[in-house]
This record gives sequence, structure tokens and C-alpha cells, in this order.
Amino acid sequence: MTDRIQKQIEAMAKAARKASQILGSLSTANKNKALLRMAEALRDKSERVLQENVKDVGAAKKNGLSKAMVDRLTLTPQQIEAMISSLREVATLPDPVGEITRMWKRPNGLMVGRQRIPLGVIAIIYESRPNVTVEAASLCLKSGNAVLLRGGSEAIHSNRILGSLFQESCAAEGVPKEAIQVVSTTDRDAIDALLKLEEEIDLVIPRGGEGLIRSVVEKSRIPVIKHYKGVCHVYVEAEANLDMAEKICFNAKVQRPGVCNAMETLLVDKAIAKEFLPRMAKAYEKAGVELRGCPETVKILPGMKKATDEDYSAEYLDLILAIRVVKGLDEAIDHIRTYGSMHTESIVTQSYEKAQRFLREVNSSTVLVNASTRFSDGFQLGLGAEIGISTSKIHAFGPMGLEELTTQKFIVYGNGQIRE
Amino acid sequence: MTDRIQKQIEAMAKAARKASQILGSLSTANKNKALLRMAEALRDKSERVLQENVKDVGAAKKNGLSKAMVDRLTLTPQQIEAMISSLREVATLPDPVGEITRMWKRPNGLMVGRQRIPLGVIAIIYESRPNVTVEAASLCLKSGNAVLLRGGSEAIHSNRILGSLFQESCAAEGVPKEAIQVVSTTDRDAIDALLKLEEEIDLVIPRGGEGLIRSVVEKSRIPVIKHYKGVCHVYVEAEANLDMAEKICFNAKVQRPGVCNAMETLLVDKAIAKEFLPRMAKAYEKAGVELRGCPETVKILPGMKKATDEDYSAEYLDLILAIRVVKGLDEAIDHIRTYGSMHTESIVTQSYEKAQRFLREVNSSTVLVNASTRFSDGFQLGLGAEIGISTSKIHAFGPMGLEELTTQKFIVYGNGQIRE
Repeated sequence: MTDRIQKQIEAMAKAARKASQILGSLSTANKNKALLRMAEALRDKSERVLQENVKDVGAAKKNGLSKAMVDRLTLTPQQIEAMISSLREVATLPDPVGEITRMWKRPNGLMVGRQRIPLGVIAIIYESRPNVTVEAASLCLKSGNAVLLRGGSEAIHSNRILGSLFQESCAAEGVPKEAIQVVSTTDRDAIDALLKLEEEIDLVIPRGGEGLIRSVVEKSRIPVIKHYKGVCHVYVEAEANLDMAEKICFNAKVQRPGVCNAMETLLVDKAIAKEFLPRMAKAYEKAGVELRGCPETVKILPGMKKATDEDYSAEYLDLILAIRVVKGLDEAIDHIRTYGSMHTESIVTQSYEKAQRFLREVNSSTVLVNASTRFSDGFQLGLGAEIGISTSKIHAFGPMGLEELTTQKFIVYGNGQIRE
Repeated sequence: MTDRIQKQIEAMAKAARKASQILGSLSTANKNKALLRMAEALRDKSERVLQENVKDVGAAKKNGLSKAMVDRLTLTPQQIEAMISSLREVATLPDPVGEITRMWKRPNGLMVGRQRIPLGVIAIIYESRPNVTVEAASLCLKSGNAVLLRGGSEAIHSNRILGSLFQESCAAEGVPKEAIQVVSTTDRDAIDALLKLEEEIDLVIPRGGEGLIRSVVEKSRIPVIKHYKGVCHVYVEAEANLDMAEKICFNAKVQRPGVCNAMETLLVDKAIAKEFLPRMAKAYEKAGVELRGCPETVKILPGMKKATDEDYSAEYLDLILAIRVVKGLDEAIDHIRTYGSMHTESIVTQSYEKAQRFLREVNSSTVLVNASTRFSDGFQLGLGAEIGISTSKIHAFGPMGLEELTTQKFIVYGNGQIRE
């Protein structure tokens, strides 16, 4: 790694740390003003942002990036509008900083409480989508954190212009501009340099493909909150209402197959498989879903493709579904523990006991009864925002909102207490 | 690293993962019975434990370990008694697992809640003290986690006998014995092997010297909760009650200087320095505390040793104290941010405004008003137990009790909801 890059990243991180000390004490009103100013700047300069984005898109095409990547990279006026709305939306969310979540009295009279404070400095490492720049910047600012944004090199022009607009907006409202910093070098060494700065950075959130995330985890000395993949299950239990089950299974697979909370494997209880599978297969067929089944499923739906072990652990992100017939709840839970990714699982049942057991024994980040896996999402669950989804259990598990960008300190009110 | 050790550690971790799935659903009564059985086993076999400990102590002396290390290693009948009490105490603590901390209703009728579940598998890497084996095993069991215990090679005989007593006790109460596993190889490669197992282990807690902790952080792909050092401050503000300040400053330094929540630097407001410092110095002199002061302090207490920058960031863990005179709250906070370790800080003042500002602007893990820093401790703050103190902000910040050994999943009760 070049010394120059190491120094550059270190200087940014130190500036972020300094800014974070001011950010932690800013009033909610002040942070909201800066967010609204960011929205305004984006509206006033949308042409300029689109021009810079065109440079990225042109380079991406020239470099032969996949159509999917070019799509994710391309900004439209509609997307800019959505960014503006999302900035305004974040301004309306409650500020988690300062909340005292509990307070209790000790026998010696000490009053002990836990109070939310920002984490400090957060680094986000991500790929292509420039809207992550807007989301991450706004949520970190609202929660009082300074943020270092390291987007993909393919989006560098878009990210730079967004970063500079946001810095100007912050400065105009008396918020230190180092609160939001875009790493403007596209050198890959910048990531390595960043991941060493455990004194200056409190948390790293990688967002992107599994390769990116694994490499961040391997190199980082800073805590990482991550999400590798979503292999989500729906288990249609013997006592399910089959009309409800059909609606939920269809929604979970088809409504938006390319996202992490879409269902990838359907588990069907043996007791109702012969009745349920043919009607479900019909619905899927109309929607163009490719099915891959266990031997039992193939017996019921002859001619379908056989599922392998790889199918059971696959995150297709596509109109493909693995199906397995199971003998009861225990086998369903076993399957989920063996092949699942701790993301999201749903049971469809009218049995009180089975519903409770599923909720109790399945320890994935989101566990649902009689609802689509697609609800595993910060907005849908009512967090007001989503900075990512964690499938590791430390700090946050499942969709992360503003509260997950804070920690809690102990505050203690005494009147002269000493220890005996 | 030898393949044999990698395989051995992997097998232990996989067995722990499997045990953790059962542990998560055990009733509180069942876990408590196992804890009481562990206490009984320790009482019945205390002679045997002491005999094994003698082997460790003999080897330690032969290998020329420091007196402090030999002291920490040595078990006495009184310490065994304390271990037995602590096991019984943990059995009386509330079980955090299963608690629903919040539940709310979404506009579409979904009921969304957050429920505490165990983290899963926890590895503890520590040095010398065999009582950590008892503490960690009992707190992990109570919170439904499987634990891998990697103590120092110098305590291997003590740890092995404790581990096997606990495994027998678990088995006798229907708890999988792999819930508590002592890594019985003393090979250092075992730590490296363990730190790679991110799929099997959810959290690593290193307890020991800074060197051990830094090396764990550097190598681990698993999240680490750590605590490097405690450079704790007391700030005697201009409007302090000086009698109260004297009591608190004496207690914070002298009551037990060798622990992380003892005060290491005293900050005194310029306005009261001339009155307060001489009387405080007198008290410290009687207790044999060596003082090292800033130029201003030296003017007031001529002849004393000068403090350097190293003194301000030192964790003495001894009867030594750095003193600095500051011009008001801002300078005090600046000093704490520059030299502190985010552990524990206290202000002594009768000013409402200064107290509130200190609580708001100092973001160390424990911030006190008019009380000794020595209260920064899981038992003293009312957590009922302490598995460690975190000075990094992710997951836990400050003293960690049983709740900090859990995470929260989302649970969702629906009645057929799908996403539009």
C-alpha cells in the first residue's frame, strides 16, 4: 500500500472523529435543518448530478460492466426525486440520540440510567448504487455519526458530486462538513487502509456482494456488521389455511424475487402436500417460476426438476424456488437450521401451539407467523429507515434503523457516594 | 498451524453450535438446576480442584512466573467458597432469554416485537485466573449460550478439572455437556484456529493484558468485545463541595488502585485548585500515593514530580496519580477526549448546568456526577453480574451483564398479510 493513500485515509478518519464529537451534541433541529438543506441542494443541482452520473455510466459501458450493474448505477430524474423525498423523510424521523431507555435506583441512592449516544464514526463500503450514498449520509447524520463513504470506483463521479453538495449543505447549517466524507480515491488500497483504523472508526458496514463482505470481514480490525445472504423459508404447516398459504407463498417468491427477503425454499408439510403443491405449482407456473423439488415433491408433481443440496442453500434472487416436503415442525426447523442463513422465516398455520413453537425455536433475525417474508425490512417493520440488515447477532440482528446506529452509555447521578 | 489442532477446535465449535440450539430453548428452571448442581459438584470435589491447582502453581513457580501471576493463579478454600456462592447467585438472577422488550402494531395489522435470544456460541480467551472459568461458564449457561473456554496454559490443570465437573453437572440435569467446553490443548495455535471459525462462533471476549487483546482483535474474523484499558478521570469543578470531592477523589484512587475503574488522572478547576490541592495532597500522602502534576499543580505543590504526556495516558493500576489544573469544563472535557480511554469519568460539582453538560458531552461508557469512578462495575450498577467491560461501542458499552450476552430477534404475528 502506498504511504500516500494511508495518510490520506488517516487524515479523513481523524477529521471524522473530530467532527463526531461535535455531532454528538448537535440539537435535533440543527441536524434536521442540514438534512432539509441537503434535499434542497440536490433539487437545485440535480442537472449537475445527472451530468456527473452520465460520466460514470459511460465509463461503465466502455469497461463492459454487466447490464445489471449499469442499471444499478444509472440515475434518473425520478430517482433524484426519490432521494430528495428520502432526505426529507429522514428529517421527520425521531432522533434516537439522548433517549434514556431506562433508569433505576440503587440501594445506596445512586440513580443509574442508560442513554443513547451516537456510535461515533461509521465507514460504509458499498458497490455501484449512488442512492446508498444519500441513504447512508442522511441516516448517519440524523443519528449523530460522522460517516466515511467508500462507494465503488464505477460510481465515483456521482458519489463525489453528492458528497460535495452534502458538505456544503452541512457547512451552511453550522454542521462540520467532515461529518460526511466521500473517499475520493478509487484505489483499492484505500479500503485496506481504512480497515486498519480501529482507533478512529467505530463500525464498518459493507453493502454489496458476498465477496466484498467476506474480504472486509477478513481484513478489518474494526467491528463489522454484515449480511451475507438471505435464504428465507416459508413453512406451510399441516393446519395452514391453504388459501392464505397460497397468497403468502406467491407473494414471498414472486412480488420481488431479486431481494434478500424473498423466499428461496418452500417447506410443505407431508399432511397437506398432495392438496397444496399442485395448486401452488399452478400459480407459480403462470408467474414463470422454475421449481426444483425433493423426491417427495417430484412424486406429487411429476416431471419437475430435482433439488440438490446446493439448491437448498442457494440464494437465487430470481424466479426459481426449491421445494421440500417435511414430516412436521421438527423436520422443518431442522431444515432451516441446516440450510438457512438466519435471515427470515415464516410459518403458515392455524395451530396456536405450532405457531408459538416456531416463534420460540427458530432464531433467525425475523420470524413471522402467517405473513410474507417480504415484510423483513426496516420500513415495513416500522423502524422508519433501514441502513442494512444484519445476520450476525452482535449489536444488531435483522433490519437496522436509526437506533442501531447508536450505543448506550451509563449515566449515574450521585450525591457523594463512595465504595466501601 | 497443525491440521490436528484445527480439526480438534473445529469439532469443539461444531459441538458447541449444536448444543446452543438446545440451550436456547431450555427452561429457566432447568438452567438454574444445572447451576446449582455445578455449585454442589464444586463443594463435593473442592479437594480435587485444589490438588489440580497445586500442579499449576508448582509449574508456574518452576517456570519463574511473576509473583503477581502466581497469586492470581492460586486457589484457596476461601476462593472455592466464593466460586460456589457466585454459582448460586447466578442461579437467582433473572433469565434474560425470551423477554419481549417491545411490541408494536403496524397499520396493516402486523404485530411486531423484539425478543431476546442467546447469542449462540461464545469463546472466552483469558489468562491465569481460574475463577474466570467459573464466572464465564455460569453466565453463558444462564443466558443460554454455549461457551468455549480458552484459559492460559499456566492454569490448564485447574481449568480442566473445573470444566469436567461442570460438564458432568450439566449432563446430570439434561443440559448438553458441550454447553461448557474447556479447550484442553495448551498449544497457542488453538487460539488462531478458534478465531477463524466465524460460522460456528458468534462472539469472542478476550480478558487479560492489552497484548493478548490486541492480538485477538487483529486475528479474529469473529466479532470481538474488548476493553483495552481504563484511564479514568475525576474532574473537581469550581462549584464542587470540597469535602465531598476529597472523599470521592480518595476513594477513586486509593480504595483499590489495581483495577480498571480506579482514577488515574485528577482534573482540578483553576478556581479552587489552591484551596483543594494542598488538602487532597495531604490525604494522598498518608495513603502513600505518588503524585505527578502539570506546571500549575507544581506551582501549588512545590517539589512534586512533573507529569508528562505519557502520564496523562497511563493506566498506572498503582498508587500513582497524575494531576492537571484546568480552566473550566471545556478544558476538562478536551483533556478527557484527548487522553482518556472511554471507560469512566466523574464530575464533582454542585452546579446543575455543569453536571448536565458533563453528562451530555462526555461519551465515555460510564459518566458519573458526584460519585466515585469505582462504581463502574456490573454489580455496583445493578446488572447482577459482570462478564466484562466494553470500551468499544458496538453491541455493549461499559459493564456487561447477562442481557449483553443476548441479542434480539424480530417476531411478527400476522393474519395473512402480503406486500403490495
